[in-house]
Parts: sequence; C-alpha cells; structure tokens
Amino acid sequence: MTYFCIFNILELMDKSSPIGVFDSGIGGLSVLKQFIRLLPSEQYIYLGDTARVPYGNKSNETVNRYAKDCTEFLLKKDVKLIIVACNTVSAVALETIKSIAGNIPVIGMIAPAVNGALRTTVNGKIGVIGTRATINSNTYEKSIKTVNQSDFEVFSQECPLFVPFVEEGLINHPATKLIAEDYLKKLKDYGIDTLILGCTHYPLLNKLIMEILPNVNLIDTGEHAAINAIRLLAENNMLGEEKNNMLSNHKIDFYVTDVPTLFFEIAKKFLGFSVESPTLIKM
Amino acid sequence: MTYFCIFNILELMDKSSPIGVFDSGIGGLSVLKQFIRLLPSEQYIYLGDTARVPYGNKSNETVNRYAKDCTEFLLKKDVKLIIVACNTVSAVALETIKSIAGNIPVIGMIAPAVNGALRTTVNGKIGVIGTRATINSNTYEKSIKTVNQSDFEVFSQECPLFVPFVEEGLINHPATKLIAEDYLKKLKDYGIDTLILGCTHYPLLNKLIMEILPNVNLIDTGEHAAINAIRLLAENNMLGEEKNNMLSNHKIDFYVTDVPTLFFEIAKKFLGFSVESPTLIKM
Repeated sequence: MTYFCIFNILELMDKSSPIGVFDSGIGGLSVLKQFIRLLPSEQYIYLGDTARVPYGNKSNETVNRYAKDCTEFLLKKDVKLIIVACNTVSAVALETIKSIAGNIPVIGMIAPAVNGALRTTVNGKIGVIGTRATINSNTYEKSIKTVNQSDFEVFSQECPLFVPFVEEGLINHPATKLIAEDYLKKLKDYGIDTLILGCTHYPLLNKLIMEILPNVNLIDTGEHAAINAIRLLAENNMLGEEKNNMLSNHKIDFYVTDVPTLFFEIAKKFLGFSVESPTLIKM
Repeated sequence: MTYFCIFNILELMDKSSPIGVFDSGIGGLSVLKQFIRLLPSEQYIYLGDTARVPYGNKSNETVNRYAKDCTEFLLKKDVKLIIVACNTVSAVALETIKSIAGNIPVIGMIAPAVNGALRTTVNGKIGVIGTRATINSNTYEKSIKTVNQSDFEVFSQECPLFVPFVEEGLINHPATKLIAEDYLKKLKDYGIDTLILGCTHYPLLNKLIMEILPNVNLIDTGEHAAINAIRLLAENNMLGEEKNNMLSNHKIDFYVTDVPTLFFEIAKKFLGFSVESPTLIKM
C-alpha cells in the first residue's frame, strides 16, 4: 500500500529532479561517491550539517531534531528521493525522516546493508562496526533478526576513534592499526565472514580492516544504498535520463552549515574529486 | 578606564552571585575543577554546549555564533564573572563575548596561561599545544609577542586527536603514546622548557606528556585562570563569603544542550566527582 503511494507520487514528479543526500558532515560524501559511480546520470544535492557534526556520540533526541532540520531543507529543494547518508541518523531517526518526507521515498543505510550482508554471508556470522550511537541503538542486529531469527548471529563493535583517525588522514598510521586491532579482535575470534562497515567514514579504512580480517567480506553501506536506489527509481520509471557519464557533466549542489578547517582537503579524500564552492546555510 | 567601570559594576553586584563557566562540552569541567579547588567558597553555573560539541575544528564564524549564545545564557543567570573555559573560544571569540558581557568581567584561557608561561620559562622557549582552531588562530603566539617581542620563542603544535583519546579514556593506551610522540617530537627538538596545555582536555594527559617531555613545565590553563579570578574578585571585594570548604557545600548548577552517551562517565573523569541531574536546555 505504501509502495503504491510512492509509485503514484513519483509518477507525478519530474525524473530530472535531484536526489537529496544528507549527512552530519563530510562522511556522507563516501555514499555520494558510490551514487555517482552507480547512478551517474542523476543530479544531486548534498547537505552536510558541518556546524553540528558529529552526531555519533549525541543523544537520540538531539539526532532526531537535527535530522528533521536536514530533511525539511531537502524537501524545499524538491528532491525526488532522500538518501540518509549517515548510519547514526539511519539507526535512530529514520522513522522521523519518513514521517516528514511523506510520499517522497527515503533510503537509509541500514536496510540495504543488511540485505547485502544476508546475501553475502556463508556461515551466518555477521559483524557490525559503527559509532557508539549506531551500535547502542542495536538497529542492525534487530533488522537482521527481523529477517531471520535463527540462521544468523550478529556481533557488534563500536569504533569511536575511527572517525577522527580518518578525518586526520592517519589511515596508515601505526596508532590506527593498534586501535583497529583492539576494536576488531573480538570479531575475529567470533569467526565472522561478513562485516558491515556501519559508518560512512569506514570505507576509507578498508585496506587496514582487510589486513586484520583477511577472510571477511566487507559491506559498504553507500554502495548497497545506491543499488537499492537504482531498483526503486527504475521500478517507478524515475531514473534520470542517460547521458555522457563524464564527471564534468554532473550537477552536484553542495550545502553545508559550516566550512570547517580542512573541509576541502577531507572532502576530496571522501569524494575523489574537489568540492567547489559549497553554499553556506543556517539551520 | 575599563577597569574602573568593572569596579563600579562589581560593587553594585551581589558577591554571592555565581561565577558562570562555559565550554563547548565537557572539557571545561577540568577548568571548573581548578576553580573549585582554588575558589571553594563560590557558587558556580556550568554550561556545556554538548549538542554542538566540538568547536575545535569549526570555523571562526560558527564558534563566534555559538559563543554568543552561551554568553547570553549566562548573563540571564546574573553571574558576577564569566569564565570562558575553552581555549578555542578564548582564542577566536573573546572580543565577541566581552562586547556582549558589557561590564561583567570575562576571563578567557589565553592571557592567564601566557602570564603563567612567561613567569615560568627560563630559556624563553615556550611550546603551545591545542586544537586546530586554537593553533591556527595564532592567538597564543601573538599574545606572548605582545608582551615581549625579543626574549621569547614560541613553538606551536596542533594535537587534534588528544580530545577523542581523552574522551575514550585511552589515556595510557600505546596508540595514544605513539600519537603523542609524533605531536611532541618537534617541541622536544626545539628545547622548550615550558608547555602551555592549550586545551581543557589536555591536563588529563599530563602524565603521558611528562614522560615524553620530562624536563618541561606544564601550564594548566584552568589553574592560571582561577588564580587570575581570585585576584580580580579580591581586588573588587567580590569574593564569595568564606565557609566550610567541603565539597558537599558547593552549589554547582549544570546546564547542557544534550546529554550524550557516556556524559556522566566522562564528566566524572574531568571533575573528580559525579555531575548530578544536569538541566537540559535548547539554544
């Protein structure tokens, strides 16, 4: 029934409308990168709430309040789809966002990653790493157990220092490796064969994580969200018109609530190319 | 002239009024701890902007906007003195705060620490460590050079990972030591004999810093700010009435903009005793 409503509304909308992507800060650019790679014909609006970042250690009430502000901003931009490019927000505020978005579809990070993990695991032992807020919410575990109570075991681990390490560019520093070994030791002992990277910063640590967990399949939440979006838009005949897929043809409007020190440097690491002239807004 | 104005206003105020202390989050509690130790007869109001923490990597414009909100909150509480218990705010927004505070005196972290360092150094080589915003502002160096252009050399180093390490309680972790050695190596090579701990989180790393820099005097900004406050209040006959100095007699009202995960645990580390029932406010 809900699906039917979405279908009707999407039919009324312009397929050239942009996809709205938001995050607490810069991390969501790793999600945007996957969308650009897999959905290169779309237009994008990216919003980073850089004046209030990070959300990961804040209370559920505060994260819900901030998520509401971000959603309302994107709705005013007439987006055809909202991507919640932040695991923390997806874990604790997805229902709030959906209720505000009405019939504009919303894709969070959790469900696509869970589907990806369930299709990938062979031994049924799935690990999840994320911020403290994401792990404390238990959303990944609940989501996996909803699909199948008995065939899967879930092992969760918060990794709060990964975000500052990535933002400082210390991806190969021995200190990062020491901390990563501490965080991932238990998951290794449990014998997981699949690991959900439940934070948009973590794909930048792929190489290090693979060194510590060499036989484990890593699930990139952004990639699976993009695959989910392709399917949703295609089924509703709402994919943007195909055109030359060169990067220079993309239209991406960047909005931020603050332009912090190192913004451009860090953004380039996540996105693979430079963010030019983000528009500064107040929320 | 300014001093004379402060004197007059302070004379009109009640000496039993509280001292207002604010910070971007929890770090300022290390400053409050020094105030309680050195000014045990005072009443305190502590405000932590925990919904928007950290300020340390944000732009000057945003830090000024947040500092204005915090100052206005404390002024409504009729404080007799405002302590800016955050080096980042002191470095980039002190003039904004003073202009809003009018004749209520404001003590930041910079000037007291600089005075302390100048009185301490023997060889004139002073190191400063802080967040990226504090170090980029160059405020410490400018402040020292204003006092004396030729007798002092200043060596600054940003230490952005110290805050997350402290908040995660990894004070003795080998990874923290590796990062600290990286950060402090140059300061050691320069032969500094005095180091300003230009961030309220850093006193919790005292032991580690002293291991790496064994012959260096550490300047705790909170301690020097408290000494400065004693002098200011005493000269204006505005010290709170002496009473039994037992901790249980203190009146400290805590206000926060969010109660994040681990708030009480981290607060206790900074303060040495538990924060009970902080009042949640919106700003």
